Amino acid sequence: MKKFAVVLAGCGVFDGAEIHEATLSMLAIKRNGASYELFAPDIPQHHVINHLTGEEMPETRNVLVESARIARGKIRPLHQLNVRDFDALLFPGGFGAAKNLSTWAFDGPACRIDSGIEKVIREMATLKKPIGALCISPVLLAKVLGNVELTIGNDEETAAAIAKTGANHISTTHGDVIRDTHRPVFTTPCYMLDADITQIADGAENIVKAMLKEM
Amino acid sequence: MKKFAVVLAGCGVFDGAEIHEATLSMLAIKRNGASYELFAPDIPQHHVINHLTGEEMPETRNVLVESARIARGKIRPLHQLNVRDFDALLFPGGFGAAKNLSTWAFDGPACRIDSGIEKVIREMATLKKPIGALCISPVLLAKVLGNVELTIGNDEETAAAIAKTGANHISTTHGDVIRDTHRPVFTTPCYMLDADITQIADGAENIVKAMLKEM
Repeated sequence: MKKFAVVLAGCGVFDGAEIHEATLSMLAIKRNGASYELFAPDIPQHHVINHLTGEEMPETRNVLVESARIARGKIRPLHQLNVRDFDALLFPGGFGAAKNLSTWAFDGPACRIDSGIEKVIREMATLKKPIGALCISPVLLAKVLGNVELTIGNDEETAAAIAKTGANHISTTHGDVIRDTHRPVFTTPCYMLDADITQIADGAENIVKAMLKEM
Repeated sequence: MKKFAVVLAGCGVFDGAEIHEATLSMLAIKRNGASYELFAPDIPQHHVINHLTGEEMPETRNVLVESARIARGKIRPLHQLNVRDFDALLFPGGFGAAKNLSTWAFDGPACRIDSGIEKVIREMATLKKPIGALCISPVLLAKVLGNVELTIGNDEETAAAIAKTGANHISTTHGDVIRDTHRPVFTTPCYMLDADITQIADGAENIVKAMLKEM
C-alpha cells in the first residue's frame, strides 16, 4: 500500500493548517487505496488568530499540539519523518504554511523556510518521490526547489512574488493540478480561489490521484 | 435550496467538535445540492485538552471562537439560529457535544443541556423538521426528546446510559442511519465506532441523504 506523509501547520486557516484541505486530503488518500501518516513541526505558532474576528489573540500555541486536533492525536513530530519510509509528501494549505512552516506571509520571496520542512522537501526531491502542495503551500516548494512549475490559482500578486523565487507560476482554476514538466511536483489551488467545500474535495482528490499515478 | 443549520461545539475531538465529522457533514450537504449555515454557542469550553498527550491544558477557550476555525470565520452565535429559517438541524459529534453543549461526559443521563441547544432541538421537533446527530451527539436528542429511537453505534455502557433517559438505543455499525419510527430524528455512529475517515464520510453522506428525503 502506498503511503503519504502529510505535513500539517496547525489547526485553522488563518494561523495554521486549513482544516477542510487537511481533512479532504486524508479522505482522498484513503479513498484511493493508499495510507497516510501525519507530521507537524514541534514549534510555536507565529501567532494565534481569533477566527471569528480575524484579530490576534494574546496566546501562544504549539504547531504540533494544535495539528493533533485534525489528527485526532495520531501525529508525530516532523523530525521523525524519514522520507525513506514514505512514497509521497503532501502539504495541505492554510496560512500556517506561510506563517509557521515559513515566513512567506511576512517576507514573501525573501522568506525563511523552517529547517525541518526544507530538509524533507529536499530529500523527497532527491529521491524523485512525488511532492504535492495545496493552496498557499506551493510557496514552500518554490522557495526550496527554485526552478519549478507550480500554481496557487490566479492571484496575480502572489504569482508575481513566486516568480521572484525562480519558480514558474501557471494560472489555474478549481480542481486543476499542475505537474512540473521535469519532476513529480504537484500543486492545486483549493482555497487560494474563492471556493466552496466541494471544490476543495475535488482539488484534493485530483492531486492525490495524480500523485498516485507516479508512485 | 434546502438549508441545514449545523451546530458546532468547538474544534477538536477531545474538547470540541470532531473535525472530520464536521467537515464531512458540510461536504455531504453541499454535494447533495443543499446549503448550510454554521452556529455555535458563545460560551467557554468546559476545558482545553492537549490532543497530542490527552492531558488538560491550563487555558480557557471559547466554543464559538474555536468553532470558527472549522467554519473559516463564517459562523454565528447559536442565539441567532431561528429554526424557521432552516429545513433541518444537524449536530456533528466530538466530546464537545458531551462537555460543552451538555454535561453528559460528567453526569451521564442526569446531565444538563445548554439552554440554547435545548431550545433549538425542541423548536425543530415541534415544527417536525428533520434533526440529525452523529457520534456522541445523539445523547443531546435522548436527553431533550426522551422517548426517541437512536444510535451511538454499539458501545454497551453508553447505550445503557442512554436507555435511562427514556430513549431506545439501537445497535448499529459503520454507515448505518437510524430514523425514529415516529418522527424525523436521524442518528449515525461515526467515530463512536473504531472507524477510518472514509467510514466517517459514508456516515455523513448517508445521514444527510436520509434527512434530505424528508425535506
